Amino acid sequence: MSGGNLPGRLIGVGVGPGDPELMTLKAVRALKEADVVAYFCKRGNGSHARAIAGGHFRIGVEELLLGYPVTTESPKDEAPYKDAIAGFYEEAAKRVAGHLDAGRTVAVLSEGDPLFYGSYMHLHVRLSPHYPTEIIAGVTGMSGCWSQAGAPIAQGDDVLSVLPGTLAESDLARRLGEADAAVIMKVGRNLPKIRRALEAAGKLERALYVERGTMKDGHCTPLVARDESPAPYFAIVLVPGWGARG
Amino acid sequence: MSGGNLPGRLIGVGVGPGDPELMTLKAVRALKEADVVAYFCKRGNGSHARAIAGGHFRIGVEELLLGYPVTTESPKDEAPYKDAIAGFYEEAAKRVAGHLDAGRTVAVLSEGDPLFYGSYMHLHVRLSPHYPTEIIAGVTGMSGCWSQAGAPIAQGDDVLSVLPGTLAESDLARRLGEADAAVIMKVGRNLPKIRRALEAAGKLERALYVERGTMKDGHCTPLVARDESPAPYFAIVLVPGWGARG
Repeated sequence: MSGGNLPGRLIGVGVGPGDPELMTLKAVRALKEADVVAYFCKRGNGSHARAIAGGHFRIGVEELLLGYPVTTESPKDEAPYKDAIAGFYEEAAKRVAGHLDAGRTVAVLSEGDPLFYGSYMHLHVRLSPHYPTEIIAGVTGMSGCWSQAGAPIAQGDDVLSVLPGTLAESDLARRLGEADAAVIMKVGRNLPKIRRALEAAGKLERALYVERGTMKDGHCTPLVARDESPAPYFAIVLVPGWGARG
Repeated sequence: MSGGNLPGRLIGVGVGPGDPELMTLKAVRALKEADVVAYFCKRGNGSHARAIAGGHFRIGVEELLLGYPVTTESPKDEAPYKDAIAGFYEEAAKRVAGHLDAGRTVAVLSEGDPLFYGSYMHLHVRLSPHYPTEIIAGVTGMSGCWSQAGAPIAQGDDVLSVLPGTLAESDLARRLGEADAAVIMKVGRNLPKIRRALEAAGKLERALYVERGTMKDGHCTPLVARDESPAPYFAIVLVPGWGARG
């Protein structure tokens, strides 16, 4: 399958929000056909995308682990962290390019959808100008969460805002006030701030807290019923638009 | 598979953005197991969702067509239209409930994701309080479009806004100005207005116009290169966030 003079193909494969059955037929086929399956992982933490998709790897397929550097001691907005991460993505792209140059098809796993807040994008912008590239869209984590909650998120002429919980409280409150429906990501230790912003926007009562949507241990609760203990980074808060219609 | 005293199960099945291979494994299984497959359709226009998913129907499965009333002569914001549509959804829910009461599992097809701007929601809010209900998340139309375009849509702390092209021009321009990334839906005859709003927000150069993302005749072009001829209702305009990073 590999070799020859033509470069291999880069495929960004969305593996969906967590339930392995929410992989698409196309993602499964891409994994069967790939010469190399690449994925990002954190040291000691494994790869969530690999856990979702691993059941569909060809026996004996080459796996390319792209292990993030250890950066816990560097603040994220300072130069040492930014330099380490930029260097890491450069290096990861070079490792993938080595396989493509050798004519191998490389499938890069991406939780959710490859082009929606995913690490795959750092490879995509570096490699897609130089190699034949295909994107296989996936079910996003937020779709997994509102499906788990059974909550119609947006309808008709609703404005939906996807907001990072890292925004300043006043900015978050203002944007929540202006949206019919909202998804707040990167909850983690921002949870108390998110709660205050929702209260200021008059939307706390409608908000839902979702952890691990579509996964075996996934669960959902009204945010007002959630205690103040720290939330995982990947928890999501939803403000469904439909509820506002009464 | 049907009969007995227990009610059947309602399943909202996301069939993805257009490419039949972007259906999930779970959606395919639900169609194999369903007693009845229901879908909305427009008279004379068929059902797009059925065209995507039809290859996976069980031979001889019962199909329940939920045909929209003809409303082209009634303005959408006036009472006769609203009454006709509300009555139609009530009636559609009753027809589905008849099958559920008889113990049959009913899979309702939904383009994209069932709870994201989909007609299925009108059944969901009426039936899910009374019957066992499951949602199978799907790849959204907008994911299909940015994948078709190969355009990283949002990253890191980006704010992403999903906006209907029906908004007033000044509102659209203001919201576009405040978002790092945007998806504009319901393009159709709103295209000239959308173009002016993007120009006012300083984002026209970055905007992409996408038709039929992931479908056989899907295509993408920079919006500035698109002529002024009318766009289909379901065309989408994307403003990728990544581009702003330079």
